[in-house]
Amino acid sequence: MTPPIAVADVRTVCCAGVGVIGGGWAAYFLARGYDVVAWDPAPGADDRLRHVVDAAWPALTELGLADGADRSRLRFEPELDKALAGAEFVQESAPEDLELKRRLLADLDAAAPEGVVIGSSTSGYGMSEMDTLADHPERLVVGHPFNPPYLIPLVEVVGSERTSPEVVAWAGDFYRHVGKSVITMDREVPGFIANRLQEALWREALHMVNAGEATVEQIDLSITDGPGLRWPIHGPMLTFHLAGGQGGMAHMLDHFGPSLQSPWTRLVSAELTPALRDAVVDGCEREADGRSIDDLVAERDAGVIAILRALGRA
Amino acid sequence: MTPPIAVADVRTVCCAGVGVIGGGWAAYFLARGYDVVAWDPAPGADDRLRHVVDAAWPALTELGLADGADRSRLRFEPELDKALAGAEFVQESAPEDLELKRRLLADLDAAAPEGVVIGSSTSGYGMSEMDTLADHPERLVVGHPFNPPYLIPLVEVVGSERTSPEVVAWAGDFYRHVGKSVITMDREVPGFIANRLQEALWREALHMVNAGEATVEQIDLSITDGPGLRWPIHGPMLTFHLAGGQGGMAHMLDHFGPSLQSPWTRLVSAELTPALRDAVVDGCEREADGRSIDDLVAERDAGVIAILRALGRA
Repeated sequence: MTPPIAVADVRTVCCAGVGVIGGGWAAYFLARGYDVVAWDPAPGADDRLRHVVDAAWPALTELGLADGADRSRLRFEPELDKALAGAEFVQESAPEDLELKRRLLADLDAAAPEGVVIGSSTSGYGMSEMDTLADHPERLVVGHPFNPPYLIPLVEVVGSERTSPEVVAWAGDFYRHVGKSVITMDREVPGFIANRLQEALWREALHMVNAGEATVEQIDLSITDGPGLRWPIHGPMLTFHLAGGQGGMAHMLDHFGPSLQSPWTRLVSAELTPALRDAVVDGCEREADGRSIDDLVAERDAGVIAILRALGRA
Repeated sequence: MTPPIAVADVRTVCCAGVGVIGGGWAAYFLARGYDVVAWDPAPGADDRLRHVVDAAWPALTELGLADGADRSRLRFEPELDKALAGAEFVQESAPEDLELKRRLLADLDAAAPEGVVIGSSTSGYGMSEMDTLADHPERLVVGHPFNPPYLIPLVEVVGSERTSPEVVAWAGDFYRHVGKSVITMDREVPGFIANRLQEALWREALHMVNAGEATVEQIDLSITDGPGLRWPIHGPMLTFHLAGGQGGMAHMLDHFGPSLQSPWTRLVSAELTPALRDAVVDGCEREADGRSIDDLVAERDAGVIAILRALGRA
């Protein structure tokens, strides 16, 4: 199926579920100049939404509002049918409860105008788990943001096998159009990509607290003053590309590869086969895209300095 | 044992092993105004060291050099005894090879002036594994930096059971004196703290590449444009403290706790017992130190904006 409206023509977004995440989405769409209709059955949701939007607005203003962006273009609508009546895109951000998501997505699908795309903010369920009660699963797609959705660029887009490929493409284009950084996955993976990575780190951290190996404060300090300063610049892969000196990722894997067998975390490593080694080395070369190790080192150094300065720590 | 020199009186540092990490340490100590004597038996080590120091110098200059800091105060000394003769602190940064580290630490211990503290940059071995051939294990301590050691503040300090408590304290004070952010661990944990956390993330990433679940580029983008933007500000724990809205970490664990059983990573979670839950919640409250959720949200938002701007991405 092809959605009935072009990405650039969308004017009205419905945010269904407006807690921390949905409220953040509402603030973001308002700042990008959209009319936003919010719906949430929780008592007091309207007031909490205003709190989230008001708290986000100074940041969004500082980053620059779109022409015509105004908080007065937010309308809270207690009845679902009315909330969906003029929607040209729907962002669902209900609590992370599978039965609730299933029922809500079916309700949204039943009431939203024909063909309008419905994106879900779910942080871990696959759409194939959530679309089971909907009549038109072809228009349901995951659009997973990161907290706060009004500042963190990433949105992970992935459909179920029943999602129309045109809907997956439309959703990626729409999020990109509103200024997001989009990763479109070609198949469902539990936790998607970023959450799998941060969840592994988080679980190791919980194990460490549980075993008395580190305190909460030590864990945070170890990241804020350590590897966390590199990750916004190059990500974990290109960061390790630089750990190998001029030899890059190839040297890094040859030198530190054996440590993958060390009990450095409770997560058992993948076997570093020649194929995996080559996939990682080749991926780093593709990503470096002609930048030499020296180029990347200079870029990282400038980035770390800029971050330390920006946070008042240089 | 008490080291023979006060932290503030150290003038000469010996860097034993000057690849990417040891060379980065040499550049850092030079920038902090120390005389640095470098030793490394690898052919061409002298030239590579100059390359590392010269590459680091613009960044160090931009951050501000200590009075008298000068690259001419670097001396490369091919003979170990001569390199150690006037050393008041020794930083060992040999390749990550246990037998090599054991022999080198014994050699350093045999030749360094009496009582001088010897820190090891090892990224994963415990000192109790490495000190086995040394006559004076009481002065050997891990001082684990992060790449590049001339920019990333974190140093993890941990001794073996044979390390003198005064040496552990002296090393922490010395690294702090030269401007580092120090975590002193009270017992050995394989991989220390930060490496356990980033290694868990890295292993999950390798599994994902291996299984065709994500490309190298998607993995890096998922971090640089996602959770990586939050980690330099609050670390993983306080970041999740904010994922619970006004309810903080307590609400977050009650709401997302069940997802710890989801197959979101290959790392099986610790059981979220009431004791673990309370330890994490209490740790966040201690770390927040009176800052409300709204305070922390404002701090995070300002930080993310500053980072995006600093990296030219706002």
